[in-house]
Amino acid sequence: MMKKAVFYHAGCPVCIAAEQQVLDALDRRRYQVEIVHLGEERSRITEAEQAGIQSVPALLLDGATFHINFGASLADVKGGA
Amino acid sequence: MMKKAVFYHAGCPVCIAAEQQVLDALDRRRYQVEIVHLGEERSRITEAEQAGIQSVPALLLDGATFHINFGASLADVKGGA
Repeated sequence: MMKKAVFYHAGCPVCIAAEQQVLDALDRRRYQVEIVHLGEERSRITEAEQAGIQSVPALLLDGATFHINFGASLADVKGGA
Repeated sequence: MMKKAVFYHAGCPVCIAAEQQVLDALDRRRYQVEIVHLGEERSRITEAEQAGIQSVPALLLDGATFHINFGASLADVKGGA
């Protein structure tokens, strides 16, 4: 069964570096990868908050949250920064 | 050609969660994964510092450093905490 990976970001430089390298390293045979740009898909900010995401970029692996480096706080993303 | 992934940790609970889930998600066909416990392999702390690692757990992917959540600072690991 495919596990789910969701990568939340906000287009920041730190986000893009993580997207390119971390997502490249994931095993796509076992993980279905979705990329969510919270600056553009603002309706999904609540979902990110509920998953425990405090900053971006962040990777949700099978429900567990991993913050990767630090690009921007979720509060900043909410504020439109 | 295999790329190299090095996971640096210090045995902390945050480190173990990351080890189990993030390393599980890596594509082992393309990435050769090494796990370094800096508390036990103290001779490798300098190498981690030179890679830009400031806290553990951290994942070095093909030379790029990604801090994953926050378990302990490298200063604490050096101090033997």
